[in-house]
Amino acid sequence: MRTYKYPAQKDWKKLLKRPIENREHLESIMVDVFNTINKDGDDALVNFTAQFDNVQLSQFKVSEEEIQAATQLVNNDLKQAIRVAHFNIQQFHAAQQDNKQAIETMEGVSCWRTSVGIEKVGLYIPGGTAPLFSTVLMLGIPAKLAGCKQIILCSPPNKEGKIHPAILFAASYVGITEIYKLGGSQAIAAMTLGTAQIPKVHKIFGPGNQYVTAAKQYAQKLGVAIDMPAGPSEVLVVADNYANPNFIAADLLSQAEHGIDSQVILVTYAETLIPLVEQAVQKQLNDLPRKAIAQEALQNSKIFLVKNKQIAIDLINEYAPEHLIVAVEEEDFFIKNIINAGSVFLGNYTPESAGDYASGTNHTLPTNGFAKAYSGVSLDAFVKKITFQKITAEGLQNLGRTIEIMAEAEELIAHKNAVSIRLESLKNQR
Amino acid sequence: MRTYKYPAQKDWKKLLKRPIENREHLESIMVDVFNTINKDGDDALVNFTAQFDNVQLSQFKVSEEEIQAATQLVNNDLKQAIRVAHFNIQQFHAAQQDNKQAIETMEGVSCWRTSVGIEKVGLYIPGGTAPLFSTVLMLGIPAKLAGCKQIILCSPPNKEGKIHPAILFAASYVGITEIYKLGGSQAIAAMTLGTAQIPKVHKIFGPGNQYVTAAKQYAQKLGVAIDMPAGPSEVLVVADNYANPNFIAADLLSQAEHGIDSQVILVTYAETLIPLVEQAVQKQLNDLPRKAIAQEALQNSKIFLVKNKQIAIDLINEYAPEHLIVAVEEEDFFIKNIINAGSVFLGNYTPESAGDYASGTNHTLPTNGFAKAYSGVSLDAFVKKITFQKITAEGLQNLGRTIEIMAEAEELIAHKNAVSIRLESLKNQR
Repeated sequence: MRTYKYPAQKDWKKLLKRPIENREHLESIMVDVFNTINKDGDDALVNFTAQFDNVQLSQFKVSEEEIQAATQLVNNDLKQAIRVAHFNIQQFHAAQQDNKQAIETMEGVSCWRTSVGIEKVGLYIPGGTAPLFSTVLMLGIPAKLAGCKQIILCSPPNKEGKIHPAILFAASYVGITEIYKLGGSQAIAAMTLGTAQIPKVHKIFGPGNQYVTAAKQYAQKLGVAIDMPAGPSEVLVVADNYANPNFIAADLLSQAEHGIDSQVILVTYAETLIPLVEQAVQKQLNDLPRKAIAQEALQNSKIFLVKNKQIAIDLINEYAPEHLIVAVEEEDFFIKNIINAGSVFLGNYTPESAGDYASGTNHTLPTNGFAKAYSGVSLDAFVKKITFQKITAEGLQNLGRTIEIMAEAEELIAHKNAVSIRLESLKNQR
Repeated sequence: MRTYKYPAQKDWKKLLKRPIENREHLESIMVDVFNTINKDGDDALVNFTAQFDNVQLSQFKVSEEEIQAATQLVNNDLKQAIRVAHFNIQQFHAAQQDNKQAIETMEGVSCWRTSVGIEKVGLYIPGGTAPLFSTVLMLGIPAKLAGCKQIILCSPPNKEGKIHPAILFAASYVGITEIYKLGGSQAIAAMTLGTAQIPKVHKIFGPGNQYVTAAKQYAQKLGVAIDMPAGPSEVLVVADNYANPNFIAADLLSQAEHGIDSQVILVTYAETLIPLVEQAVQKQLNDLPRKAIAQEALQNSKIFLVKNKQIAIDLINEYAPEHLIVAVEEEDFFIKNIINAGSVFLGNYTPESAGDYASGTNHTLPTNGFAKAYSGVSLDAFVKKITFQKITAEGLQNLGRTIEIMAEAEELIAHKNAVSIRLESLKNQR
């Protein structure tokens, strides 16, 4: 990790810059993938799966028997942990439910909103050696709470044509049973276009590699909504001498092990903390199975020494971290002044891992500075809010003239007439 | 308007298809516009404005004097109408404010969310003969309520280098004073990239022609958020014999006058209503100043006669209209069963114009079937929700083992360590 002491504010943008990911060249690949699937349907999916997942499948849907069998294959400790996490995540997201609340903006003019679950949603869970069953919970639980009618899940098969039992168990525990063995950009394209086997959905959620990300961007162009734009995961820790350097080091490493492009930043106004954290990082690093990855990620990582908490918060808001850990004495200052962050972890006993897995908050969060404009996934992401209004005859008599004047000033006379013709008819009724 | 009697469900998709807009060819134009502005900054804006708006400007910002002068130029009736609309829109959007609500998901594990206004937002208001001051209210009011710190507004100048006084008055009444005389794709590009005169923003809102829409899509690729994808405006009216055919005709025409690509649909299960509406449309059409536009839009418009209300709602949910007018006896059935719509207008005295201008709901709504996955603009669109969590030492003792098991199963050992190291230290403290 490289340390920057009291960097000038004019240099922040440059110092905080994320590595640029250029995905332009992937777009032409996506055009091919989408066109092929549009033309050949499931045959194309069979070919892509043979090519990228090294397995020959003709049916993509996971059978009821496979789901049952998976339940047997997951050990009881993990099952129980998934149940605890499920309980917490469910509680936190259930509290996000909106109550329909009618407002009478004027006498006789009632307006309200209702939340309706998006009818058809697709969840993507990446493959790889480790099964990301935690993401199944993070996407599946709010989808269920939102009342989405059709929830499908795609995840790539391994060479034996199977999906990891922990993913199947988590999905089934959440209540998702429409699961497809399909991965990569072909899964995103199939959910966007629909094939005989894979249903078309209205919104696609979930993480993935650069191909999956490019496919989601392309899907958006075709009118399918996506959860949010993606980038490498990142954490910023702000700490002072109140923090435990060993804990800080563990948090930095837990981010660094994600991938060589993970972003790890420490901001402090306590200079003496820096060598302590550096030593603890070196010590803990050696025992990690993913040491090589973490080490490479740390090479791009930065420590900023700043003068005071005000400069610290300004720098944090400029960076807009996905995860922000606040381990300082005056944490209220940061709670009050944070503008740009995905999720905030407060105090010495709140590691990022808690939110990654089981405390209740969602781990699908805006990276890459997107926290300046985007929220993380929540119940909101799975619903649409429809506005309603009902105006009585008296209400239109109260509001009508206002509408007529405005419509006329915008030169939309038919808009005006829609009111005038009603007001006329009410006059005649008297 | 063409009538389809009892269309088979398998034909709905085809019959309800919107005209395809192909914007692929616009993307290369956008690359040029954005690159030119990136390279030449305000000089490029000067040139584009001379080229497209036929006026030579060197300073884009509207002066305080111009805003003051505009106030004198707007007549009192319109000022008062704007004040009434402002009051209603403000009330409805203020009720959308979320209360921070902490949940203790487990003893010692507290999680909550706060809403924070997006720091910098840009509002785009199109030009043309008529001033769209209503959109200033619809975007400006929620932006102010959300607490966005910097709200800028761009709108193209006329040939005299001015913005219509009604737009300036509405903006100033809302509390927006950072207004720029800049239109088209160059305005979107400037707000995306930032220039010496035009600030860079995090999210861009507002309607526009195909160039503006293409520019917003391109801005999104560069990491700036946008309100929603756009398409031509549309209304679907569902009516039975409870409805007044003259009112229905007026509502259909108020949509048809928007543009030749406006979509207008009537769905009914009362066959006798159809000729009455058709006659009323012909009669009212003749007196409209925008008759030619409305007439052309009506040529693509459709009347569907269906067997009953269940088929009606299924067809509506398949179409996903931006505006849905429900003028039927059993309106509760539609309130209960609508899944896909932007905004719903209930009863005989609730014309779409009410929501377009002054009842309180927002008129920036998802068109083109996007109501299947997107909501209209609301306070939500101007805030981000940040999640927070704080875990006590006891809380981590309750939750820690769950996190360790899950992290280990996902083979993320540093994630596990971030918990283990804390639990260890707590053991040693005893």
